[in-house]
Amino acid sequence: MSYFRDNVERTAGYTPGFQPKAPEVVKLNTNENPYPPSPRVMKTLARIKPEQLRRYPDPLGNAFREAAAELNGVRPENIMCCNGGDDLLSIAIRAFCDERRPLAYPVPTYSLYPVLARLQDCRAIEIPFGEKFDLPAQLAMTGAALTMVCNPNAPTGSVVPVEELASLADRLAGVLLVDEAYVDFAEQNCASLVRDFENVIVLRSLSKGYSLAGLRFGYAIAQKDLIDGLIKVKDSYNVDALAIALATTALKDQAYFRRNVEKIKKQREVLSEQLRSLGFAVPDSRSNFVFARVADDSAARIHEQLAQRNIFVRYWNAPGIQDKLRISVGTKEQNAKLISALKEILSAGGDKS
Amino acid sequence: MSYFRDNVERTAGYTPGFQPKAPEVVKLNTNENPYPPSPRVMKTLARIKPEQLRRYPDPLGNAFREAAAELNGVRPENIMCCNGGDDLLSIAIRAFCDERRPLAYPVPTYSLYPVLARLQDCRAIEIPFGEKFDLPAQLAMTGAALTMVCNPNAPTGSVVPVEELASLADRLAGVLLVDEAYVDFAEQNCASLVRDFENVIVLRSLSKGYSLAGLRFGYAIAQKDLIDGLIKVKDSYNVDALAIALATTALKDQAYFRRNVEKIKKQREVLSEQLRSLGFAVPDSRSNFVFARVADDSAARIHEQLAQRNIFVRYWNAPGIQDKLRISVGTKEQNAKLISALKEILSAGGDKS
Repeated sequence: MSYFRDNVERTAGYTPGFQPKAPEVVKLNTNENPYPPSPRVMKTLARIKPEQLRRYPDPLGNAFREAAAELNGVRPENIMCCNGGDDLLSIAIRAFCDERRPLAYPVPTYSLYPVLARLQDCRAIEIPFGEKFDLPAQLAMTGAALTMVCNPNAPTGSVVPVEELASLADRLAGVLLVDEAYVDFAEQNCASLVRDFENVIVLRSLSKGYSLAGLRFGYAIAQKDLIDGLIKVKDSYNVDALAIALATTALKDQAYFRRNVEKIKKQREVLSEQLRSLGFAVPDSRSNFVFARVADDSAARIHEQLAQRNIFVRYWNAPGIQDKLRISVGTKEQNAKLISALKEILSAGGDKS
Repeated sequence: MSYFRDNVERTAGYTPGFQPKAPEVVKLNTNENPYPPSPRVMKTLARIKPEQLRRYPDPLGNAFREAAAELNGVRPENIMCCNGGDDLLSIAIRAFCDERRPLAYPVPTYSLYPVLARLQDCRAIEIPFGEKFDLPAQLAMTGAALTMVCNPNAPTGSVVPVEELASLADRLAGVLLVDEAYVDFAEQNCASLVRDFENVIVLRSLSKGYSLAGLRFGYAIAQKDLIDGLIKVKDSYNVDALAIALATTALKDQAYFRRNVEKIKKQREVLSEQLRSLGFAVPDSRSNFVFARVADDSAARIHEQLAQRNIFVRYWNAPGIQDKLRISVGTKEQNAKLISALKEILSAGGDKS
């Protein structure tokens, strides 16, 4: 007998990407930013006082809300802080979905979505993306209480144009959550949709563009009624005092952020070209990773042989994507090590030595 | 029409205690520790490297698990880190409760419990405590999937002996969660129950005893099967890298912790005596607050008049407790200011000036 609910008992749970302990590895498996956070973040850290640890944090993180509102051309009441983007995904599913109120999303996508649906015991309606990862028309007709679109999408790196998401929001009876965890590396974002649509939530993360994966900080942008409802569902103090202070500083240093993002975009193009010249099919990416298809059935083997060389990329043995590797864009040096290792592995062919 | 689930729409949400911004107030309303965290915590903070912010944290916070296991005489697999104790309460209710699986707890108690039950759309079975806040026998017979006992209890400060909780665990078919957020100020704790009962979860917090309310850190102690199931429900990265590092340091500085706790216990006895001499009925407290009953119907007025003097205590206009004030134990100086203000207010009687 189990003490747990059946749906929890049946869930395998989410498996985070492998976190190697050795410091000298080339870690391109969990889409971290290869560059450090803004030096101003470390200055804020150095100024933290014991009093900020002793007292409860501001439940709403208003200092951050003000900075995020200014950046996105909305008001602080349109922002909710969260303990990483995943916190918002969980809050939204608990706020809108249950046994009678399904979740819908196009696939393949972020593998956490079905795990969260299972935990909430709601139906997950999965609609395959089109051939070129374009938005499936069926997604507007599921009747779901909540529709999630990861844009740019993981693990494909593809984007759906803002106008198509506006059209989707317009047709949906339920809520549309646009998961923009990777949007800092794209050319467009959906913040403007919040003004026009009362049913749109935009998710942002500071993990990738701001190099703060270790801090767990993300936020929601939406109209006030949605934000107020989400606040009821979140933990009272879901973001801690240090995280609020550091995330606010990071968001305000837009000059550093933009330089950092440009470096990654440039390396993304170089890496994509190099992978293509080695025979991988690499669609254009608008994120900080590329999704490279291997010409034969050797993706799993390449993944393994890279790991033996302390180079980590992500591989899923799952239908439709088991011929692909998701590779985070690293520094110039990390990318060069990856390409050099791939050349060795590919020239050795099927030889396992 | 609302986009939200009915149960969410109907919920008012939890109201955290007022957080005054002015630095010079006497803040005795949210049970923070009046003393700063261990100086070693600030040293760990000063040694944080940008790399710890850039990379994802350890999903399980194993450094902390090891320290907490050693402290409590269990193994790391018996510990789960959480983003404050509230995170564990939410995880447990989502893991065990739903429309067909109720939650039970004795009342009055922590006012978050019914809010979380409402959000999970599970029934909350509330059983009144006995006359002297002893455990009601009925609590063993509710058939609830999860029973929570806050011990020491908030807002009463009372304790139920460990043997009675052992007997309750033995009789329950479901899980017993003992919320020990305040146990650092008590003489006994329930960690030993985890060895004997597969259905017991002990909740601990670093907010009170370790002066880290701003950091959001708590943990669960339970047998491995329960911990493994709870891990499936928690956010993959629910505690951040800074919090893991700082909480681990704080937990390891037991000498500082014990001195700090002894100071508060001593002040608690002094404060209780002084309040009694002013005519309040103050039961013995085993927490870092006292629950003082006012002889007449002036509790709300006293609360208000203290606030006008920048002295904040907690008051609930709720059945059974509207004649009481919950007062966090402050420093000797803070407590003296409170007593002096109370003398003024009481000698002025019903006069509102």
